[in-house]
Amino acid sequence: MTQTLRRIALARRPSGLPVPEDFALKTDPLPGPGAGEVLVAVRHLSLDPYMRGRMDAVKSYAPSVAIGGTMTGQGTGRVLVSRAEGFAEGDLVTGMTGWASHAVLQGTELRKLDAALPDTTALGVLGMPGFTAWVGLKLYADLKAGETLAVAAATGPVGSMVGQLARAAGLRTVAIAGGAEKTRLARDTFGFDAALDHRAFEDARSLRTALGTAAPDGIDVYWENVGGKVLDAVLPLMNTHGRIPLCGTIAMYSGADISAPDKLPALWRSILVKRLRISGLIVFDHWAQFDDFLTEVTPMVSDGRIAYLEDIADGLENAPAAFIAMLTGGNTGKQIVRVSA
Amino acid sequence: MTQTLRRIALARRPSGLPVPEDFALKTDPLPGPGAGEVLVAVRHLSLDPYMRGRMDAVKSYAPSVAIGGTMTGQGTGRVLVSRAEGFAEGDLVTGMTGWASHAVLQGTELRKLDAALPDTTALGVLGMPGFTAWVGLKLYADLKAGETLAVAAATGPVGSMVGQLARAAGLRTVAIAGGAEKTRLARDTFGFDAALDHRAFEDARSLRTALGTAAPDGIDVYWENVGGKVLDAVLPLMNTHGRIPLCGTIAMYSGADISAPDKLPALWRSILVKRLRISGLIVFDHWAQFDDFLTEVTPMVSDGRIAYLEDIADGLENAPAAFIAMLTGGNTGKQIVRVSA
Repeated sequence: MTQTLRRIALARRPSGLPVPEDFALKTDPLPGPGAGEVLVAVRHLSLDPYMRGRMDAVKSYAPSVAIGGTMTGQGTGRVLVSRAEGFAEGDLVTGMTGWASHAVLQGTELRKLDAALPDTTALGVLGMPGFTAWVGLKLYADLKAGETLAVAAATGPVGSMVGQLARAAGLRTVAIAGGAEKTRLARDTFGFDAALDHRAFEDARSLRTALGTAAPDGIDVYWENVGGKVLDAVLPLMNTHGRIPLCGTIAMYSGADISAPDKLPALWRSILVKRLRISGLIVFDHWAQFDDFLTEVTPMVSDGRIAYLEDIADGLENAPAAFIAMLTGGNTGKQIVRVSA
Repeated sequence: MTQTLRRIALARRPSGLPVPEDFALKTDPLPGPGAGEVLVAVRHLSLDPYMRGRMDAVKSYAPSVAIGGTMTGQGTGRVLVSRAEGFAEGDLVTGMTGWASHAVLQGTELRKLDAALPDTTALGVLGMPGFTAWVGLKLYADLKAGETLAVAAATGPVGSMVGQLARAAGLRTVAIAGGAEKTRLARDTFGFDAALDHRAFEDARSLRTALGTAAPDGIDVYWENVGGKVLDAVLPLMNTHGRIPLCGTIAMYSGADISAPDKLPALWRSILVKRLRISGLIVFDHWAQFDDFLTEVTPMVSDGRIAYLEDIADGLENAPAAFIAMLTGGNTGKQIVRVSA
């Protein structure tokens, strides 16, 4: 058994899109678990857009990562040493391990995994991203059969679950994705009724025209996880009494739109005139419903009604590059890092 | 009995804030009511911000006024001739008379008024503005005792009702109003816990600092009826899980913010990070609840628990000037025009 812990630390705060120099690989002595704690050897690490926010010093819905601190993240792994009731060596678990080869966590912070499905599913389709889609639709989308839903990043772990759950509820689903391959996956793997490649449209106006064709009855639910050009394209197509669960603004993280003409008055007026409902969604508020999600969706994943895609990078040292690529859409499906076999 | 009908027509579509030349006083022969119809002599006419939207050709939640057509509006009056069941000469009624001395309306479009309260109350505190406040709070504000609510145009007929209902529900209420006299009225007449004169602050930042003092625990509900500088000031003070019923954007009607830096990314991120809920509100969707409103609020007006202010201009020919003044905050309280004694 290795006697060192490897971890990816935040070396400095990024400006806009992170670069490799914002991260540093560090090595520490392997810690031992205290009473009630468990030492986990991390197997798979989840990479998620929310982590970009944790790299900033600004107040957000969760504390920042400190300079020199380990990047936050959920992982799966095997119990190496347990001093917590209910956990034994060899158990497959998941918890907030961080970007690290090992983690010491309280037993109460860990959840045991069922070995019937790959442990990676606990990070994506049956983890935080899948749950985000499920709980956001349930609380804020008021899905009605016959309506139309649009979602961007539609082959990602949130967008693909949003589309599949909405389609199962009888909605027409329109995917917006980056590139020809992802639009194909949106249709063929995730069953979207229509899929558009936003890279094929030079501006919001041309994307809007294509969306208008793909959503001939307008858009009733826009699942917002990107912002920027897609929002500009979608807003005029929203139907009266439309709903916008706002789950992410990844296209705005780098402040790319700062020099654009002010679109807020037009947005504000659209919300009024169309009686839209915009609801900010942070999944961490809703963990109390996580078991309900697993109960409902696990069988759908097991029998293939819900499809999922994973993009697995190899080696903890490659986590920063995989994370940066993910923020610009370079991955396909849920981004995971294999930390150990 | 006069044999002519005087009316204010839309002469041309305004650009930004309307000017007197956008209106024209016209005279027509007095029409007679057909079967099922009633001829009403208008007594009081309501002026409301939504009318500005009706002057534009752009698609909104209601049809535009045609060039040459009578300006839309609610009035009260006496029945002169009735050919509709349930109405007799001399009845006091209210309905969409338009900006006119007389109107022919279907009996089904009219509501008889109780003579126990002044007929003007049917246009303000017990009319559309009061109902807007009541139904918007009920549907979209989720008021909780101990929370803080902020509202602009706080001595107006919507804002003053919002503040009084919120205070009755146990909230701390903060008024934003234009001028020293209105801030005094907000406190003394409408019982706001604090009142700020937005004209005393040169920018959103200084207004925000004062708001922060007036709302030391942050803002849980922001009733949005103005937009612009007040929105900029309020947004960073919103508490997590805050609610924003969006009822008007009067400060943005003229497009004044168009040259400002794009504030949409910051707004979008605030909605996400703070899990805000923004709900567009058009009162016309909710008439089914109007009787419930009257049942609940009429006694509160009768016994003085709910105060109201009216600003009554004299003469139909002065309606355009009163309307223009209202759009820039020149009135105090519900703006009404006395059309006949």
